[in-house]
Amino acid sequence: MANASLTEEFLYVQVAERLEKQMESQVLKTGDKLLSLRALSLEQGISLSTAYKAYVELENKGLIEARPKSGYFVRYTSRRVPQLLPAPAVNRSPEKVSVDAMIRRVYDNLSQTDVVKLSVATPALELLPEAKLNKAMLEALRQNPSSCTAYEELRGNLTLRKQIAKHAFNWNGTLTEHEVVTTQGCMEALVFCLKAVTKPGDTVAIESPTYFGIFNVMKSLGLRVLEIPTDPTEGIRIDLLEQALETTSIAACLFVPNFCNPVGALMPDHRKKQLVKLLASREIPLIEDDIYGEMYFGKTRPRTCKSFDTQGLVMLCSSVSKTLAPGYRVGWCIPGRFLEQVLSVKLMHTVSSATPTQAAIAIFFETGRYDLHMRNLRKALHTQCLRYLQAIADYFPRSTKVSRPQGGYVLWIELEAGIDAFEVYEKAWLEKISIAPGHIFSTDARFTNYLRITFGAPYTPEIDKSLKKLGRLIESLRK
Amino acid sequence: MANASLTEEFLYVQVAERLEKQMESQVLKTGDKLLSLRALSLEQGISLSTAYKAYVELENKGLIEARPKSGYFVRYTSRRVPQLLPAPAVNRSPEKVSVDAMIRRVYDNLSQTDVVKLSVATPALELLPEAKLNKAMLEALRQNPSSCTAYEELRGNLTLRKQIAKHAFNWNGTLTEHEVVTTQGCMEALVFCLKAVTKPGDTVAIESPTYFGIFNVMKSLGLRVLEIPTDPTEGIRIDLLEQALETTSIAACLFVPNFCNPVGALMPDHRKKQLVKLLASREIPLIEDDIYGEMYFGKTRPRTCKSFDTQGLVMLCSSVSKTLAPGYRVGWCIPGRFLEQVLSVKLMHTVSSATPTQAAIAIFFETGRYDLHMRNLRKALHTQCLRYLQAIADYFPRSTKVSRPQGGYVLWIELEAGIDAFEVYEKAWLEKISIAPGHIFSTDARFTNYLRITFGAPYTPEIDKSLKKLGRLIESLRK
Repeated sequence: MANASLTEEFLYVQVAERLEKQMESQVLKTGDKLLSLRALSLEQGISLSTAYKAYVELENKGLIEARPKSGYFVRYTSRRVPQLLPAPAVNRSPEKVSVDAMIRRVYDNLSQTDVVKLSVATPALELLPEAKLNKAMLEALRQNPSSCTAYEELRGNLTLRKQIAKHAFNWNGTLTEHEVVTTQGCMEALVFCLKAVTKPGDTVAIESPTYFGIFNVMKSLGLRVLEIPTDPTEGIRIDLLEQALETTSIAACLFVPNFCNPVGALMPDHRKKQLVKLLASREIPLIEDDIYGEMYFGKTRPRTCKSFDTQGLVMLCSSVSKTLAPGYRVGWCIPGRFLEQVLSVKLMHTVSSATPTQAAIAIFFETGRYDLHMRNLRKALHTQCLRYLQAIADYFPRSTKVSRPQGGYVLWIELEAGIDAFEVYEKAWLEKISIAPGHIFSTDARFTNYLRITFGAPYTPEIDKSLKKLGRLIESLRK
Repeated sequence: MANASLTEEFLYVQVAERLEKQMESQVLKTGDKLLSLRALSLEQGISLSTAYKAYVELENKGLIEARPKSGYFVRYTSRRVPQLLPAPAVNRSPEKVSVDAMIRRVYDNLSQTDVVKLSVATPALELLPEAKLNKAMLEALRQNPSSCTAYEELRGNLTLRKQIAKHAFNWNGTLTEHEVVTTQGCMEALVFCLKAVTKPGDTVAIESPTYFGIFNVMKSLGLRVLEIPTDPTEGIRIDLLEQALETTSIAACLFVPNFCNPVGALMPDHRKKQLVKLLASREIPLIEDDIYGEMYFGKTRPRTCKSFDTQGLVMLCSSVSKTLAPGYRVGWCIPGRFLEQVLSVKLMHTVSSATPTQAAIAIFFETGRYDLHMRNLRKALHTQCLRYLQAIADYFPRSTKVSRPQGGYVLWIELEAGIDAFEVYEKAWLEKISIAPGHIFSTDARFTNYLRITFGAPYTPEIDKSLKKLGRLIESLRK
């Protein structure tokens, strides 16, 4: 019986996926009528209920719609919103990061509750398992000999480190708990790794466009950045990185190979391998920010660069801030051969990370609640992604281009040349909608007609209304 | 009735204090027989039970002892353990901090449970209100709209900031919550303040001797240190600081005016005022580490330098790590005119501090549990301080000198010249006793015959045995 129902589940997903592919390849076009449930069941040799489940799956993803008394119709089309073209190949000399007042402007007023926050790349709170997390915290306080009042050891909670090592299996990693150091979120992990392998004045290669927080960290540590363009499907342009390495002395690279922010690119495995090999040949450390790696929409967890690392040069950083509990500030790094240096930096800066939050997350992992939660979250995010994409297709000007993320939280949207995204930001703010203008994802003015929109929140009528407004607003700004 | 019992309490404490003063001033000497309870009650015009309570108070502090059928005798004497002399006046040019491998050596193996840890300056866990803290955490999870899963705002938990502002009244401060920024422990507060007002290569004046963590932070931030000697009763030598300011460009000072670690000096109010005025005349920021300020043995909370600050140049840093919950990593700073800079640094490094731990501590403060706990903790620490002092008088060589802290956790012990404290450390380690050798509290070899001992743990027979062993060990090392 268990097997039968597994097969059943497998079947409807398979059917839905085949239909989805047909839509992507334009075999099925927007407005096309789909087979009736009975016809589909006959054609595919499946039960009526499997056919129904396949359509519900596609409907939930916003790809098809049921019209009363008429049957099912294709809603989705990829043609109306062209995919992003590869980023322009720019190869410039390293430059000092300049402060961006826009960042404070965009993020300072976000505690206002009446704003639709399409600018914040975190999961909506309703997608987080609050009650189960509370339970894990209670268990942590009860189980810990000092009720979590004592300092945690420098490396971090042992159970948590074991769980992180265990989960590394999913991205083809083989680790022990001794290789893991916990931190206060992924941001602190990046700071520790950068401090471990660079000194002020050094140059670090990063992606372009990139999350503005990365620029902030660089600035704070007195580092210079070299921006390497990221291709929306292939990830970081390795050819351009190689060129840059010929002329510039680079102390480290900091990349986000899995679902980078804001482009959302997933670097294919062979490219990851190629990147690791290139950097190993020059003994350059790679700080791999894998904070989005668990949020894949495909069948399997994408590999990490770390999984191709034979020299201990890859320093992997991650956290539960984007998946489980932003407020817990629990992150970690796996610093390879730089373990001792990272421990030294941690000892100098914060001594140890908070005991109760680490202990609660450890229990959440250990009891299998994390895996269960992630299965649900991934499904919700994938559905939301498709819904938001559809809305952009429906409401934004036809000249709009948009990324096709295979994971993560964000859509990277290219508007018609000449439209200033900061103007869009300011006008949208007046309508109580917050978006992130492209300006804040680079040190130069290369992305002034780009927007980042987060699909972390379930698709509600309010979101729909906001995206419609945003579309009209952008339309009104066309020259 | 309530009043009567208050007066009663007041009386026995008064009587005990007068007797304690007589011992300190050598009116009562070691071995002297005290008045019988009846005689004391007649002499002082107090009830028998008040007289009894006064003696119990002194006995608990280890100052007197009851001998069966003989009455009460003075145990304590200040003469046998001379007080520390002021530190030697050394005025040197600033120097690069060098890493001290000893620190890792002393602190790396401390997770071993069979070691008597006289080296760790934290309260013994049995002095912490675990059950009440757990209760506060539960309330926090229940009250918080997102069960503490959401990011806390950049400045930190609002209730906690209000409570910190309210408690500033105790040290003569007048604050609002807008002036407070929460951090991950006091260490992170120091890092943020230093980053806000210095750049790599700058020189920062610190105390000598000083907590080794301060050197670590300086090194990590690429700062140079200028060590200014600290007088055991007057605190930092303002005259030497003034001299140094004539010849050296100092970007900031980082001092611990209340119960500095390891000397334990309490800088008198008029000196604090003088220090603030001196630095204000040169527009030099003072980072005031007040982490021990709440652990006073006297009647009132000592003032802070911040309370004399009219220019916004004093940046006060503190935490609950030494008083309430080391593992919670909840600290804060009050950065005066550098508020915006500190917020910028916090945004760049950690974005926000953990939500659940801050919320729990906020509730612990708000419900008055913190004040109650601190009253108990202060009393326990004072008693422990006197007990440990007494043991040193009893067991250590007569040439030993020791600090007389009026608060905090630590005793700073000067051994006979020629005894190497690191040798003491290594021999004590073999006996499962961990102490902190003076070497790690300075960048030069000025304190090689000094030890730091923590009295954070209640005085048990095991502690007594360890101190006896330590005394013998030191005796055996005399040339």
